Parts: sequence; structure tokens; C-alpha cells
Amino acid sequence: MKVGMLTGGGDCPGLNAVIRAIVRKGSFHYEDEFVGFLEGWRGLLENKSMPLDLSSVGGILPRGGTILRTSRTNPAKKADGLDKCIATLKKHSIDALIAIGGDDTLSVAQKLHEKGVKVVGIPKTIDNDLAGTDYTFGFDTAVNVVTEAIDRVHTTAEAHNRVMVVEVMGRDAGWIAIHSGVAGGADVILIPERPFDIEKVAETIRLRHARGRYFSIVVVAEGAKFSTDMDPQHGAPIVQDMEKDEFGHARLGGIGNILAREIERRIGFETRTVVLGHIQRGGSPSAFDRVLATRYGLGAIDMVHRGEFGCMAALRGNKIVSIPLADAIAKNRTVDQEMIDVASGIMDKLTGDEEPVEK
Amino acid sequence: MKVGMLTGGGDCPGLNAVIRAIVRKGSFHYEDEFVGFLEGWRGLLENKSMPLDLSSVGGILPRGGTILRTSRTNPAKKADGLDKCIATLKKHSIDALIAIGGDDTLSVAQKLHEKGVKVVGIPKTIDNDLAGTDYTFGFDTAVNVVTEAIDRVHTTAEAHNRVMVVEVMGRDAGWIAIHSGVAGGADVILIPERPFDIEKVAETIRLRHARGRYFSIVVVAEGAKFSTDMDPQHGAPIVQDMEKDEFGHARLGGIGNILAREIERRIGFETRTVVLGHIQRGGSPSAFDRVLATRYGLGAIDMVHRGEFGCMAALRGNKIVSIPLADAIAKNRTVDQEMIDVASGIMDKLTGDEEPVEK
Amino acid sequence: MKVGMLTGGGDCPGLNAVIRAIVRKGSFHYEDEFVGFLEGWRGLLENKSMPLDLSSVGGILPRGGTILRTSRTNPAKKADGLDKCIATLKKHSIDALIAIGGDDTLSVAQKLHEKGVKVVGIPKTIDNDLAGTDYTFGFDTAVNVVTEAIDRVHTTAEAHNRVMVVEVMGRDAGWIAIHSGVAGGADVILIPERPFDIEKVAETIRLRHARGRYFSIVVVAEGAKFSTDMDPQHGAPIVQDMEKDEFGHARLGGIGNILAREIERRIGFETRTVVLGHIQRGGSPSAFDRVLATRYGLGAIDMVHRGEFGCMAALRGNKIVSIPLADAIAKNRTVDQEMIDVASGIMDKLTGDEEPVEK
Amino acid sequence: MKVGMLTGGGDCPGLNAVIRAIVRKGSFHYEDEFVGFLEGWRGLLENKSMPLDLSSVGGILPRGGTILRTSRTNPAKKADGLDKCIATLKKHSIDALIAIGGDDTLSVAQKLHEKGVKVVGIPKTIDNDLAGTDYTFGFDTAVNVVTEAIDRVHTTAEAHNRVMVVEVMGRDAGWIAIHSGVAGGADVILIPERPFDIEKVAETIRLRHARGRYFSIVVVAEGAKFSTDMDPQHGAPIVQDMEKDEFGHARLGGIGNILAREIERRIGFETRTVVLGHIQRGGSPSAFDRVLATRYGLGAIDMVHRGEFGCMAALRGNKIVSIPLADAIAKNRTVDQEMIDVASGIMDKLTGDEEPVEK
Repeated sequence: MKVGMLTGGGDCPGLNAVIRAIVRKGSFHYEDEFVGFLEGWRGLLENKSMPLDLSSVGGILPRGGTILRTSRTNPAKKADGLDKCIATLKKHSIDALIAIGGDDTLSVAQKLHEKGVKVVGIPKTIDNDLAGTDYTFGFDTAVNVVTEAIDRVHTTAEAHNRVMVVEVMGRDAGWIAIHSGVAGGADVILIPERPFDIEKVAETIRLRHARGRYFSIVVVAEGAKFSTDMDPQHGAPIVQDMEKDEFGHARLGGIGNILAREIERRIGFETRTVVLGHIQRGGSPSAFDRVLATRYGLGAIDMVHRGEFGCMAALRGNKIVSIPLADAIAKNRTVDQEMIDVASGIMDKLTGDEEPVEK
Repeated sequence: MKVGMLTGGGDCPGLNAVIRAIVRKGSFHYEDEFVGFLEGWRGLLENKSMPLDLSSVGGILPRGGTILRTSRTNPAKKADGLDKCIATLKKHSIDALIAIGGDDTLSVAQKLHEKGVKVVGIPKTIDNDLAGTDYTFGFDTAVNVVTEAIDRVHTTAEAHNRVMVVEVMGRDAGWIAIHSGVAGGADVILIPERPFDIEKVAETIRLRHARGRYFSIVVVAEGAKFSTDMDPQHGAPIVQDMEKDEFGHARLGGIGNILAREIERRIGFETRTVVLGHIQRGGSPSAFDRVLATRYGLGAIDMVHRGEFGCMAALRGNKIVSIPLADAIAKNRTVDQEMIDVASGIMDKLTGDEEPVEK
Repeated sequence: MKVGMLTGGGDCPGLNAVIRAIVRKGSFHYEDEFVGFLEGWRGLLENKSMPLDLSSVGGILPRGGTILRTSRTNPAKKADGLDKCIATLKKHSIDALIAIGGDDTLSVAQKLHEKGVKVVGIPKTIDNDLAGTDYTFGFDTAVNVVTEAIDRVHTTAEAHNRVMVVEVMGRDAGWIAIHSGVAGGADVILIPERPFDIEKVAETIRLRHARGRYFSIVVVAEGAKFSTDMDPQHGAPIVQDMEKDEFGHARLGGIGNILAREIERRIGFETRTVVLGHIQRGGSPSAFDRVLATRYGLGAIDMVHRGEFGCMAALRGNKIVSIPLADAIAKNRTVDQEMIDVASGIMDKLTGDEEPVEK
Repeated sequence: MKVGMLTGGGDCPGLNAVIRAIVRKGSFHYEDEFVGFLEGWRGLLENKSMPLDLSSVGGILPRGGTILRTSRTNPAKKADGLDKCIATLKKHSIDALIAIGGDDTLSVAQKLHEKGVKVVGIPKTIDNDLAGTDYTFGFDTAVNVVTEAIDRVHTTAEAHNRVMVVEVMGRDAGWIAIHSGVAGGADVILIPERPFDIEKVAETIRLRHARGRYFSIVVVAEGAKFSTDMDPQHGAPIVQDMEKDEFGHARLGGIGNILAREIERRIGFETRTVVLGHIQRGGSPSAFDRVLATRYGLGAIDMVHRGEFGCMAALRGNKIVSIPLADAIAKNRTVDQEMIDVASGIMDKLTGDEEPVEK
């Protein structure tokens, strides 16, 4: 068969491992040919492609990024966008298309499927928050990067008797925050799933200092929110929505900086922020992610040959299974009770605290 | 309650995270007291212990090794060994004992349980080969260390047109070899579960070179075995069991060196060996292992308080469950078909090869 | 002799290696006794100390931070501050004091020396900008951390056709920026020593894109400055001095965010910023820094026994030498012509550009 | 000018950085053209080459290995070898040749220079033992890899009360052993420069245990030698020269295994060996090595344009200078007194020991 492939949405460690697995299994076991469309759906809109064979994927396994490049272009939002995509597929005599991406990328795949394109999806989200799949590749690498950063600031926090706030990715779900917070020994973990009471956060740190530990590490997901707009102690509003300038750059800094200010205001200890940003989604994937990404790639090319179109490869327990694209893109998967219990288990108790993760 | 704790058998990244999780949850949520027995069962035989509290476990999460140290001492093999252990537990008024270790350590735990000691086990094996549990801590770290080493030798193999043989841990099961082999992009992976035909290994490398790839990476588990004692091409016996000197040190080198010689003899390409050895089981645990080890520790202290003695904490899917010690120590878990399919999927086909991983 | 020791100023990888080297050489070769004063000069002001012997320094070599903790307390700015310090030294019968720190810490050491205290200094600055010494410990680690971060964002920049701005430490000198920029293959490096013309920066990136390279990496030291206050193209002022709130947290973000906005405004390519912050000064030191820190420690304890007080250990070429404290704290060392030539050498030419590093 | 380039001898992190720096400076500043000869001198013997331009060197800076590949082929040892090289250079109209390699590679460069070829050398040795230059690229990376490995085995040694012997590269000089030994906190460092007394090694470890430290780390360079052929205590010969089989693979293991056996025989503590081998010379270069390799590359292309042929780029202090090839290949540079003093300084005293590093 002649199989097309593209990567869409944000960068994510393991994309090259997925591409390599598809090309290798397709070449060794199925005698497929491959075409890579460049920069996500833009490659189909503008007919930009490259041939993909065994030598194109040589040496790419340990590399971050994607040799097909990526973009956030959404053809469903352009006039005739989907039809242009279909025309490009015809021009290349593509029998099946494998789309690797997040919600947005896969929703286009679903729309093309509804128009008769033979498409298979592979889920990609650094945030590990895609419904229908237990783990997504890239997440383990991000957690390792954050954990290593926490280890580094830990020694500094300890040397200086400081509170360090580490802001990590996670707009809608706190998976990276809670995993890296537990792995890094954070004292407070704040996730979008549970709006937090700034007074309780301050109290936890105060109690810790009362026990003789003169530093604290707070891990906060970028999407975490205060449970109140008002600062009850100081009578001033907490600015929750950061103003953005015309280019979308935050003016006041994100939640990390705001939180640091509110903590320092309350407890008087020197508080500093580290915003990890893009280093969480680039670079060489961990061994776990390379294996997982390889499995997704192998699963997808097998689905192509079994004719399971309109579906997405998903990890369930120890197996790659096939689930309808429509199910997958329906909703986000938020942090589960197991991980909340883990975080609560190793943390200090707050008086009267019923939501232990928010400590 | 007053809870005793010990770590036995080989070093494994995550032991300190287990100890820390037990002490923190026990202190914060149960008001337990803790005693750490030193150097595995030897600590009980010789009454060597240290008190364990929140401050003893401060800062140990990212550290390799075990603050309780470890040994391979087996009290069941000493006269009155088990009784001496029981006497020590009484002397310290221990209500329950948590034993962290592999087959050997847990078999002593089982024997003490049969004599009425309230004991809970936590499985520890870098090899990930313990029946009854999906993943053991330390394994992910070992796979990362091996994968990073493969990445390093990869560039050298490529620069030199060389075959590089990387020997990794795994006496009875090939989990580390197959995971790191897939993650590192190995061209041949040899595991104990499937004795290999040296001629087929050589043929795979020859075919690769015929395709224009002038280097190859072979990952071999220390327990991998030739499928024949005789070298059919050269009429000379392949030495399989390495002679050991009086101290147990290999005379001829392990399987890695022997394999390199046999490959070089057959295909004439320069072949070199790297034996990774002890660097696979030391050092700071990966984020995955820190979370997993923490979960095992939390599970075990919960089991103590639920009175689930004679049992072991085990990971099943996404949950820590409790299973009888006797079941766990019964048999080894070998590499499953899923991982073999993954390895076969990304590898080249061998003519007439029905067991693709052994390529 | 009885030797006191303290660490002052910001955290810096290698502090523990310095402490360990002093205590080991002092114990093995000179039969010294040691007292560690806690949290920099505050330990002397408030008489907070800990005994230091071989076992206190066991295992600290690979650890970031400082077991003596640190602070920015300056006794010269408190009433009777210096006299209180001298009283504490007398109380402990200290024969000589070793002060490890930056400009500020060493200026106090100099003042105590002028009052007759037998003091030896060890320079500490992550920024590598101390006059009189070729290299300071901590710098190599910081450069490695930044370089690894650049490697990570590199793959993301490339995958997305993006400009990535990486803001690194360096208020007065661009050592970290220029070393990590060269090591990470940055396309533009901006340092405090040379105010930059934003139009030229934009032009460099435009030329690169014209050559078919669709991403660029800009490394900017936190102290880098625009050469003009006015934005000639847009007629709006570039905000150079970031407003600070009452706690010293930046309101508008640092130079990295401002620069990203100005680049995006000019060239229209998506531009993102990573501010590395505190992860640059924490964590396990590189091998180079451990050796260098060890050498500084050995040099200082030798100086104590040779009676070279009022002096500081300094690295000159391959040797640790002794120089007057007064000379060392006099002025900053800025990036030298050699490194500027290196950076210019590997970078593209700008039309009419006479100051190539600012590209 | 049209400039040829080749890399010879063993792999070394930084080779790609050298190649990139030459091509970038040559392209941006001199309008040179480049030809890369493949697999060292073999490329000239067999006329195997690739064009090199800005796009060929894109993205190679962080990668180990060499895009030109390497070999140990020596044309001076083949009939008409040198003449064939000269003919190939003519065929490509090469104006000047840059040869990057060790003793062996540079001695061929010198012979070609004597025959009138315009050649410039760049020294390459992981061992840092080349006369005439202070530091060679690749060395810092190797020391970091070894130090990280020592950190890993450290935790295992400590957990098990074990002696760990770590064998590192260094046939003629102990630079890697002494730098990584100091950086990793080794208790004994053995280097080729100073044959060691096995009884003194054993005594050092015994004294350490007597002080209550129940583990020890021994770092040994592969070229370290016993000071005596006879084992005085056991009356048996110590096998120093390891037998090699027909393929050059060691039969008995190298110095690491032999040493471990001799230590265990004498002191009775469990002793294990790790042989680091090829992971020391592969993989992504450290930031230090990337900068240093870049400087060598820039120095060499400048030398070409200044007409300094028959010379080699060398690092002296902080500057790249030009020295005659003939001087450079004359002799090895062994560990200097400064580093021996550092190692002695932080180590325990041996009774009657006059050569402290050999402890």
C-alpha cells in the first residue's frame, strides 16, 4: 500500500520514533511505500511532502522534534480545506493516511474519515490527558525533565531557606505536575482539577517551617486556579487571568509568578519561581517513550492493514488497541484518584483538609 | 504501630523512595514508629538497627542505594536463623515487618510469616521478572541507563563501521535487553527466553551491510544462550559456560565477549563489546521509578494497617494490589509476546526465521 | 589549627566539593579541626555553627547546594556587625577563617582582614566574571545545563519553524550566554558587554530564513541591553527596565520576553521564550567543576597553613595561586576577545556589522 | 580555496563540532569550498568523498561520532600509499588539507607535508595526552561519563559494603583516571605513570574500613601496572599481560578484573569490577568540548588562510596557537604534578607512602 503520514500540533518527544516504527514495519513486513506530508495538515493543503523510506528514518529514534515538522494549521477552518487535502491525497495515490497529533489534529482526521478518507490516528499529547488511552508518549520525558529541574532547584532552595515555585505544563490536567511533584519530592502540588485555597498553601509551608524544614518546593500546573478571586487577608484581588499583549505573550507572568508573590506576601519567606516552558516538550525521548512511541507506530500500521479506519491506536494496560477516533477526541482525561491518593499519602496533613492534593 | 523495615538482595534504584514513602505515610497518617534493620536479614540476625523518622528520610528520594544498606544474608540457611530474627523483632517490640527484596529475601519473609511474624513484602528486582506484578521499580532506570549507553556506542559504531555488542543484565529474563534494545534501536536482541542461532545472527548483520548500513548494534542479556554447543562452521565448540575462578570472577568474559568473537569470526567486521555491569543498578532513580517505588511503599504501609500479612504489594495495571507472598516467589516472569511482537515489528526479516527476536 | 568556614551569596554547584576538600586535606595532612558557620555571615552574627569532620563531608561531593547553607546577610551593613563576627570567632577559638563567596561575601572578608582577622577567601560566582581568576567553579555546570536546554528547544524550534529566545544568567557579563550559545549552536548571542541593535538581530534571522533555515535560536544574557530606547520602525519605546512589584518580581518579564516580542513584531515568525532561571545554579556539579572546586579548597587550606591571609585562591592557567582579596573584588571580568572571535567565527556575516557577536 | 578534510583514529566526542566550525567559518568568512574524505586516510587512498557545505553540517554540533566516519588505515604502511593520497588530492583540486586525528593520523599528515602537501593538523585524543596542547576535545566528555558511572556505582558500593573497581581508558597516561577519580570521590586512583604496590592498595582499603567506611571505590586506568610481577603474600605470579585470542579480545579480562581479584584475595571484602569501555568515547559532547572543538576548527581554517602548513592547532592557556606537527607527535604528555597533588591532597595518608596517588 501507499501510506501517507503527518505530524500535527505541538512538539512531543517520540514523534520520530513513531514515524520510524511505521516505516520499518511497513517496509520489512508489508512492502508499503510511504509519503510524509510536511508541517501537519499544511502539507496536505499546500502539497508539501517528502518520500519516506528506511534510509530517511535511519538514526532518528533518539532525536526530539519531528522530521516531518509540524504546525497548528487546521484545514477544517479554511474554505475547501478538507477538499484540498483530499485532492492532495489523490494526487499522491495515497491508500491510507496516518495522522499523529492531539485533539485538534485528530478532529480533522475524523472529518476526513467522514468524507471517505481511509485514516488512522495516533494520539499525541505531552499532557497525557487524552481520553481512551492510558499513556501517551512524550509524557514520561516531560516528567523526567521536570523532575531533574526540581532536583536542581531543591539544592538551591535548601541552601537558601527558600520557597521555590516550579511552574510546569498542564492547562487542563495536572498529570505532569502530580507525577513530577511526587518524583521530585514537592511539598505542595497544585493542579487544574482542584482549585486551591492560597491560605491553605501558605499554612502548609508555615507548618513545615515550624517542623524545622526551612525550605519548600511548590509544583504548580500552568492551568491551576485559585479557588477565590479575592485575597481575604489583604483585601486585594488576585489577578488570575494574566493580561496578554497583542502577540499572546503574558504580561504579568503566569500562575507561577503570581503564586510566588502571594506566598511571599503571606509567609514572608523569600520565594522564587522557575517556569520550565518549552524545555518540557523537546529533546531526546526517554527509553519508556521510545518504546511506547514505537508501539503506537506499529499498532497504527497494523490497523491500516487490518482496515481499521476512522480509528485511533490506544494503550490499554499492556496492549495497543483500536478505538474510534470520535470517542477519543470527545473529552479530556483528568488526574485520577490513584495518583491523588499517592500524592496525599506522602504529604503532611493539613488540619481540616479534605482535598489533600491541594495542600 | 511499631514497624520494622529492611532491604535485602542487590542494589536497585528506588529503595530509598520506598523507605521514605513508608515512613512519611506512617508518620503523617498513622502515627507509626519505625525501626530500620541494617544490611537485610543480617540486621535481624545480629540486631543491628537504626531509628527511622521523618528527618532520617529527608532528602533521600533522588538518591540511589539504600540508607538501610543491604546484603544477601539468608537466615533460613543458618542454624536457628529464623528464631534469632524473631527474637530481635521481640526485643524491639516490632508489631509488623516490611521486607523489601527479591525472591530470596521474600522467601525468608514467607518462612517468618509461617512462624507467625506479621510480615508484608515489597518486590524488588531490577530485572522486572517477578511473577504477580506488572512492573518493579528500578527497571525503568536500568533501561534508561542502558539506552543512553547504546546511544553513545551507536555514534562510535557508525563512525567506525563496526559491530558493537552491548551486554546487559538479565540472567533468566530478557526484559532489560528487549526494552533497551527497542529504545536504543538495536539491530539484534538476544534474550534468555530464546536460545539463538549464531549463524542467523551473523546473517542478519550481513544482510544489513548488504543494504548499505555499515554498522550494527547487538544487545545481549547476560543469560542469553547459544542454541547449539557446536560451531557448525568452524567445527569448534562454543564455550558457553564461562569458567569462574575461586572468587566467582569470569575467566573468559561473559556472553558479550564470546558472542563478539563468534560474530567477528563469521563476518569479518570489527566487533567490540561493552559490558555495562553494575552501572545498571545504581544511581538516581528515574521519575517513573520514584513514583512507582513511592506507590509500593504506600501500598505496603496500608497493608500493614489493614492487617494483610503474608502478602506482597503488587502492581496490576494502574493499581497497587495485595497478593500472597507464596504466589509471588513461585516463578519468574519472562518476556511476553507483546514485547516480542514489538521487537520483531521494527526489525528486518530473516529468511525462514520463525522466532524474530532471536535475530 | 582550628579553622572556621562559611559559604555566602547565591547557590553554586561545587560548594560542597570545596568544603569537602578543605576538611579532607586539613584532617589528613594538617590535623586541623573545623567549625562550619551556617548561612554565610549570618552564622557569625548569630553564632550558629556546626562541627565539621571527615564524616560530615562524606558523600557530599556530587551534591548541589551547600551543607553550610547560605544567605546574603552582610555584617558590614549592620551596627557592630563586624565586631559581632569577631566575637563569635573568639568564642570558638578560631585560628583562621575561610570565606567562600562572591564580591559581596569577599568584601566582608577583606574588612575583617583589615581588623586583624586571619582570613582566606575562595571566589564563587556562577557567572565566571570575577577579576583575577580564569575560571570559577559552578560556571561549567551552568553552561552544561543551558546547553542541554538549548538542545531541547532546538528540536522544537526546528519542528515548528520557530524563533526561540533562551534567556540565561549574566547580569554584568555574558560568559554563560556566549559559551552556551556557541555550544548549543545559537544563531544570535546577545551579551551585556555589547548593547544590541534590534534591527540587526531581526535582519540576521531574516537572512537565515532566506537561506532556507526556518528556525532560529537566540541566546540572551539577562543583562543584555538594547542599543536604543526607541523602536525606530514602530515609533514606540522599547521598555528596557522592567517594572518590579513590591517583592522584586518582574512585572513585564525580563529581556527574553521583551526581545521575543520585538523580534516577532519585526519578522512575523512565531517567537517563544524560555527563561532558565534557577535551574542554572543548582544541582550536581559537572566533573570539571568538582575538580576545580576541589582545587580551590585545597589551595585555600594550604594558604591558611602558609599564613597567606587577606588573600584569595585564584586559578591562573593550570595553577592555583594566591592574590590579594582587595584586587579580586575590585572589578568584574567581562567576556574576552577570544570568545567573541569564536562566536563571530561560526556565525553568519551581517552586512556592515562590525560587532559580530551582537548578531 | 578548496579545502579537504578527514577524521582518523578512534571516535571522539567533538569531531562533528570541529567539522562544522571549519565549514561555517570557511563559508561565511572566506568563501571556501569543502570536500570531506571518508573513513580517514582510506578516503584518500580509495578516493571516497562527500561534498561539505553549510547544509551538510546543519544539526551535527550535538552529535557524537563523525559524519566523515573514521578508520585506522595508515597509507604510509601501504605501497605507494602516500602517492595515492596525493593523486586523490590533485583529482579534487584540493588547495589545502585539514587532518583531524591522533598521533598516527598526524604522522601521516607530517609525511604528506614533507612531500609538499599543504596540510594543517588538529589533535584528537580522548586521553588528553598529546604533547604541545593543554586540552584536547573529547576528554571532558569522557571524564563526565566516567564520573557519572562512578556516582552510580558509589551508591551500590555503599549499599553493599563493597569494593568497586572502575576501569577507565588511558593506556599510556592517567588523565581520565585521575580527573574522574577526583571528581567521583575515588578512594584509590591508579595510573600508568606510577606502577602500584598491590599491598599498599589493600592497606589503604583496610585502613578505610578501620575508620568505619565500609565501601571503597578504586579507579584504575587500563594501562596501570603492578610494580612487581610477584604476589609476595600468595607466592603466585600476578598475570600482568593479558592473553589475547586471535581477534585481540582479552582472555582474562583487563587490569580491572585482575586488580579486583587481588584486592579480594588480600582483604576478603566482596570486590566487583566495572569496565567502562567504549561508552567513554561516544555520544553527545559536553558543552566544554563543543566550545573547545569549535575553537580547534576555527583555528585550523585560519591557519590554512595564513598559510601555516605543516602545523597543528594547539591550545595554550586560553589561546589557540600554531605549532609544528613534528613537535606534537613526538611524545606523550603524562599526568602533571598539579593533578597528582590534587589527588594526594584529598586522600588519606598511607604509612610510609611517598607516592600518594598510587594509594
